[in-house]
Amino acid sequence: MGVTTVVYEGGMKFVGRGASGHPVVMDAATASGGSDQAARPVEVLLSSLGGCTGMDVISILGKMKTPVESLRITVDDDRAPDYPKAITRIRLTYHIVGRVPPENIERAIELSLSKYCPIANTLGGVAEITSEYRINEIA
Amino acid sequence: MGVTTVVYEGGMKFVGRGASGHPVVMDAATASGGSDQAARPVEVLLSSLGGCTGMDVISILGKMKTPVESLRITVDDDRAPDYPKAITRIRLTYHIVGRVPPENIERAIELSLSKYCPIANTLGGVAEITSEYRINEIA
Repeated sequence: MGVTTVVYEGGMKFVGRGASGHPVVMDAATASGGSDQAARPVEVLLSSLGGCTGMDVISILGKMKTPVESLRITVDDDRAPDYPKAITRIRLTYHIVGRVPPENIERAIELSLSKYCPIANTLGGVAEITSEYRINEIA
Repeated sequence: MGVTTVVYEGGMKFVGRGASGHPVVMDAATASGGSDQAARPVEVLLSSLGGCTGMDVISILGKMKTPVESLRITVDDDRAPDYPKAITRIRLTYHIVGRVPPENIERAIELSLSKYCPIANTLGGVAEITSEYRINEIA
């Protein structure tokens, strides 16, 4: 997939760039010596999981001719209490709006988490990943 | 650490936000139905690892009173050949410029990868992570 290069930009700011060339900016909180200019690394990690499985779900539901009107995925992690505070569990909740049959949603999520998403299938080797979905919920 | 929410913004674009509120933007290549407006999820994942261990190394070398002049970390992954193409191995190379004793660099990297960086210590449970460093190399 090509090398990703992460460059230090002073303070606690880092910018990663992979083969696409697009920046991924990170910073620490001021309490940790940063300037709070960008997301924390763990937020970036959890975002990558949501984006990965989200792209799968959009793609699969599109192929099923039942596209979503909107999709929002919450990614909630449990961490070990002591350093290095490894991630032990991740809960994914897919919030979907649209005329999408529940069985299609279930199939799309299952295909992503078990077969297509490399990030879920990497993290799933060390953290328990569980998923649920809510469709057309009233906020 | 708070929930991270990843919102679908059309095409294959997703934006994640954790407790800090800063955006993490992702998009797919045009060949995959995206618009190539932002980094791919796997690039975002590998960037998060580089940022996490990079912040540790900056922090530890600062406490040792041997700060770097510059730091760049390359993150190179091996993937399984078949879907879900899980990450099987990650090579980290720390490129450091500065008057930093090699033993301080080695200690900082070791402390990060074995003790402080939650991302390395999560991914390390499923992928082999190896590290090396280069100091004051001539480009």
